[in-house]
Amino acid sequence: MSSSEGLRDPAAASSQGSRLSIPEIIRKKRDGKTLQEEEIRYFVKAVTQKHLQEGQIGAMLMAIRLRGMEPEETLALTREMATSGRILEWPETWHGLLVDKHSTGGVGDKVSLPLAPALAACGCKVPMISGRGLAHTGGTLDKLESVPGFKVSQSPEQMTAILETVGCCIVEQSEELVPADKVLYALRDVTATVDSLPLITGSILSKKAAENLSALVLDVKFGSAALYPTLESAQQLAENLLGINTMAVLSEMDAPLGRRVGNSLEVLEALECLEGRGPCDLRELVTTLGGALLWQCGRARSVPEGAVRIARSLDDGSALRTFQAMLCAQGVEAGTAGALCGGTEAQRLRVLSRAPAQEELLTPRHGTVQQVLALPIARVLHRLGAGRTQKGQQINHCIGAELLVSLGQPVVKGSPWIRIHYESPKLSEADRRDLQSALVLRDIEPIPPGSRVVKTILPRNMPK
Amino acid sequence: MSSSEGLRDPAAASSQGSRLSIPEIIRKKRDGKTLQEEEIRYFVKAVTQKHLQEGQIGAMLMAIRLRGMEPEETLALTREMATSGRILEWPETWHGLLVDKHSTGGVGDKVSLPLAPALAACGCKVPMISGRGLAHTGGTLDKLESVPGFKVSQSPEQMTAILETVGCCIVEQSEELVPADKVLYALRDVTATVDSLPLITGSILSKKAAENLSALVLDVKFGSAALYPTLESAQQLAENLLGINTMAVLSEMDAPLGRRVGNSLEVLEALECLEGRGPCDLRELVTTLGGALLWQCGRARSVPEGAVRIARSLDDGSALRTFQAMLCAQGVEAGTAGALCGGTEAQRLRVLSRAPAQEELLTPRHGTVQQVLALPIARVLHRLGAGRTQKGQQINHCIGAELLVSLGQPVVKGSPWIRIHYESPKLSEADRRDLQSALVLRDIEPIPPGSRVVKTILPRNMPK
Repeated sequence: MSSSEGLRDPAAASSQGSRLSIPEIIRKKRDGKTLQEEEIRYFVKAVTQKHLQEGQIGAMLMAIRLRGMEPEETLALTREMATSGRILEWPETWHGLLVDKHSTGGVGDKVSLPLAPALAACGCKVPMISGRGLAHTGGTLDKLESVPGFKVSQSPEQMTAILETVGCCIVEQSEELVPADKVLYALRDVTATVDSLPLITGSILSKKAAENLSALVLDVKFGSAALYPTLESAQQLAENLLGINTMAVLSEMDAPLGRRVGNSLEVLEALECLEGRGPCDLRELVTTLGGALLWQCGRARSVPEGAVRIARSLDDGSALRTFQAMLCAQGVEAGTAGALCGGTEAQRLRVLSRAPAQEELLTPRHGTVQQVLALPIARVLHRLGAGRTQKGQQINHCIGAELLVSLGQPVVKGSPWIRIHYESPKLSEADRRDLQSALVLRDIEPIPPGSRVVKTILPRNMPK
Repeated sequence: MSSSEGLRDPAAASSQGSRLSIPEIIRKKRDGKTLQEEEIRYFVKAVTQKHLQEGQIGAMLMAIRLRGMEPEETLALTREMATSGRILEWPETWHGLLVDKHSTGGVGDKVSLPLAPALAACGCKVPMISGRGLAHTGGTLDKLESVPGFKVSQSPEQMTAILETVGCCIVEQSEELVPADKVLYALRDVTATVDSLPLITGSILSKKAAENLSALVLDVKFGSAALYPTLESAQQLAENLLGINTMAVLSEMDAPLGRRVGNSLEVLEALECLEGRGPCDLRELVTTLGGALLWQCGRARSVPEGAVRIARSLDDGSALRTFQAMLCAQGVEAGTAGALCGGTEAQRLRVLSRAPAQEELLTPRHGTVQQVLALPIARVLHRLGAGRTQKGQQINHCIGAELLVSLGQPVVKGSPWIRIHYESPKLSEADRRDLQSALVLRDIEPIPPGSRVVKTILPRNMPK
């Protein structure tokens, strides 16, 4: 007869006094109740020390995903995650200068590459801890690894040394930092619990808290190619993250950022930006985000003034020289870094790996370019080997795409609009069909491309 | 900058064609969508073959718990779980005779012990697969193991042999049966996903389907001491389970069933029932459930006629003789079985382990017994060692309680109302306080105790 169905009684557990238990904490969140700080601490500790079953973590993540969290719960989660590992320590003289950016990710987003050295050139210390790409979005670390010799793994002590001499570094998350996030993040990915606001908040801010920052700017994307399909949820995320000297910039991302997508190609475009050239949308985002941070840490009297200072560092070569120094400090040979940062495009292409084959696709009819959708392009590049499906997978850095048209541009039938760099596998008919679906043409008047930056959200407390 | 937050795009995964993926299936249930049969099959197969992470099972269980399942999903889940392992095979001549009962569990519920032999004495074949106790509810297997020598582990072949000669057996679930349920059930217990109607249904019915039964009766409890706090949810469960020659009986369970709680003490009470004696509520439930099954498999023209036949088997000793034969067939020495089934209570107490100490608690005032709450009693016994907190834990079979009063009985202040059998630890003041909270007295008129059986629910199709 009785299997043990029906054995557990909720009241029984809670009547056993104040001893915390994981099933009881899961049950509480399952029922939509607000968790106490000590309950969240108990859960995060159990995750870090592996004192619970992975199935319990999965259930808790889903309960949080479906029931949500109050702001105070999210705050407690973030704090407990941050203190689950080491907190980075910096020299006292750097106080107020330590800045970083977090982006919710987008196709063609190479902002970090020019932004970190531009900020350092303006006197900031930028201990940028970055990630790798998964699925259709690229990762900053992958882009940098297309530069031969670049080492993303740097100890906290090495980071301090590089920040001392260069002012910025772009590294992978160390094993010692936020171990709770490592566990939770890996599981969220396979349990369909990535898009949970409190979990996103905890994951992002715990890492930034462990970096011991003075100021943080969030580049929150919205649009079809990002996690957040609506402006509303993007704003909610920004709101949620504000309050720790954090500022958010909401930016559109239906189209790829810049005109090149793919690891090597994006390094090339970042170098153009560092020379004061390159696509306007990339430069605008870099100067806006950088300007915000300069204002936040008191090195500019307004965001526009900060943006002008960042732009100047791009135009006068100081940001480029800082980038070159960072490459050398992170393992790139001086000759390689020099060829990249001083050379012509041809010299650069000899350093970076280049795909053996290119194919240009043609516009199917006359019209005006209304939109170039990032997502179909990213998916095709992913299939061609530019991105990974699983963690740890090798990727091919030379795979990528160059847009040959701009939004609002009139085109005639049969003109090339995108160039695909590929190796193996080759482009299939399905790939070509998917790529063509990315090009949205309009018959009549061109649509003004408008500004990529939609809105900036100020921090609650003005910086001192 | 970018951690890999924001990388996954739902549309990306679904656009990759019809290849199923566990995260995609979890996402679908997370979003409250209806899973296809092939998706449920894919999930159950992955669970059985351990081709997924435990965290994914936890997330899926929570998604099912919070989003629910349509009847067709529950049916598919049940079917896939049932076929995840071996299905028991029986001789063709037993067709139509194979019956079993499932109970949602209750304090003092020893129904299986008299019911299985009573049904066998009436010509049925009863391959009862039972469970162990966890938390405050006892398990049938634990009760039987207080009989020295009783072996709950029997192979399908041994079960066939015992059913051939005796007609009934009470055994633990074999490793080969419903392996998917083993995994899911163990996780549900620690992830606060036990009380999910589709998961309960899948767990119960998959095991019964693997038993290859002709008819099944469900003893669905409701009340404070059971899983289902409301009549409504109990009825919903019964409804859900109907349709495979299944009948449900809803019964009240605020009070313990019978007057003895605890493994050895419950065997004693079951033996009284098998002698045609013992508490009326136990006998009523045994005859009702047994009568239902006799009617369902065509061996009685109505439930009441079936109940009369079961009662007769209790009164004429045929059920008791069958129980004795079952004990011997499952490893109990003939002398032991004889002393239990033929002897006096004193002889029985020499066979079963007996607690070294007893304590009687006294009524605090005059009044009428309105209710004796099962839950506080069960919790105290659990603390005293009668039940386990974790799987595999040893329990003390002699710990238990005897009720010395009946519902509706007038009592004077200072008269004994419960006798606790204990060993180590001893009764604490907190235990005594908890026990006294179980006794609900009323000042004036006695409340008629009423019938324990509240309602019977007929199967949709009348038996042939």
